[in-house]
Amino acid sequence: MRLAELSERSGVSTATIKYYLREGLLAPGRQINTTTAEYDEEHLRRLRLVRAMIQVGRVPVATVREVLRHVDDDSLGRTIRLGAALWALPQIPEPDTEDEYVRAAHGETEQLLDTLGWSNAKALVTISPAYRSLVVAVAALRRLGYDWSPELLTSYARLMHQAAVLDLDFMETHPTEAEKVEVAVLGAVLVQPMLQALHRLAQEEESARRYGFE
Amino acid sequence: MRLAELSERSGVSTATIKYYLREGLLAPGRQINTTTAEYDEEHLRRLRLVRAMIQVGRVPVATVREVLRHVDDDSLGRTIRLGAALWALPQIPEPDTEDEYVRAAHGETEQLLDTLGWSNAKALVTISPAYRSLVVAVAALRRLGYDWSPELLTSYARLMHQAAVLDLDFMETHPTEAEKVEVAVLGAVLVQPMLQALHRLAQEEESARRYGFE
Repeated sequence: MRLAELSERSGVSTATIKYYLREGLLAPGRQINTTTAEYDEEHLRRLRLVRAMIQVGRVPVATVREVLRHVDDDSLGRTIRLGAALWALPQIPEPDTEDEYVRAAHGETEQLLDTLGWSNAKALVTISPAYRSLVVAVAALRRLGYDWSPELLTSYARLMHQAAVLDLDFMETHPTEAEKVEVAVLGAVLVQPMLQALHRLAQEEESARRYGFE
Repeated sequence: MRLAELSERSGVSTATIKYYLREGLLAPGRQINTTTAEYDEEHLRRLRLVRAMIQVGRVPVATVREVLRHVDDDSLGRTIRLGAALWALPQIPEPDTEDEYVRAAHGETEQLLDTLGWSNAKALVTISPAYRSLVVAVAALRRLGYDWSPELLTSYARLMHQAAVLDLDFMETHPTEAEKVEVAVLGAVLVQPMLQALHRLAQEEESARRYGFE
């Protein structure tokens, strides 16, 4: 397809597509003559991914480039390739290990992983930004006097594991390895706002069921 | 307790507490003499709530004031009071109803609520920001060519309903109506980052179980 059609099918303006081409976020089309290039379905898919990260996820261009480098690196095994792509997305800073709440949260989080039997996640604690984010979130809850029991945390974690099974089952419906990694990155950016909205809506539904509207 | 103790127990500096007092986010203590005021457990709880919104949730001061007005309004029934407090938190703008993806997403979202039997949530569609957020999220997915089936969306929604049941069960363990509303607002700010971290960690665990680390 030509640039105009690529623009129409992706909903991205031709000016923005040219910008992405210049920034190396999109591979050049196949040059037909000096002024015209031909694009294919792979360009369209990549363009959607870039757009999702930049427009929906507000990910900076340099970070998008780094994520794509991992997405395209088929020398990596799938778990590491998925991890590397997701880990390049914006993350929270390293928690302060001098802080007493952070230290307690480390202990509580490791205990949680043991209870859940998440031995693989436990093997990744020193490198996983997700683990780090969880420690920070647990420390914030405790510092603010939010007295969740370990059992409640375990119950939430089990629900999120079911969500992860749905995520990966959906990812596996995609034929190629590149598409699988792309859909995982897209999901990391797009699925979270949807889950959050579903969660709030479910709270309203459940609240109205229990207490009515009075 | 005196200001110094309130500061120590809350982890909020005395200068910041004085700022919250001036801004009307915290009720004045009981004046003992011209220079000393006495604070109680209710001040401590309120201070933690304000701190969570401002420091963790990055909620602007004017919005915090509005949320607190709803938290303190016991003329409202619980569902509406919870809703009004949560709805005052920062929200996404109104979706563009001229957009074809937004119109399709409205249809798809109403269909979802029917499938789920969430009749209460459906009664709130015209006023609920959660519904609006969901429409925007669905439209974004579709615009980017993310081909989730309605069944998959329903499965995610059922998981989020289970999370909402945990939320409200936890809320109900708190004795007074004011504490219940406070814990719900605190949860809206703090629980989402924790669920997101648990979700990512669960993806890593599940990915490693399926594909190993190679």
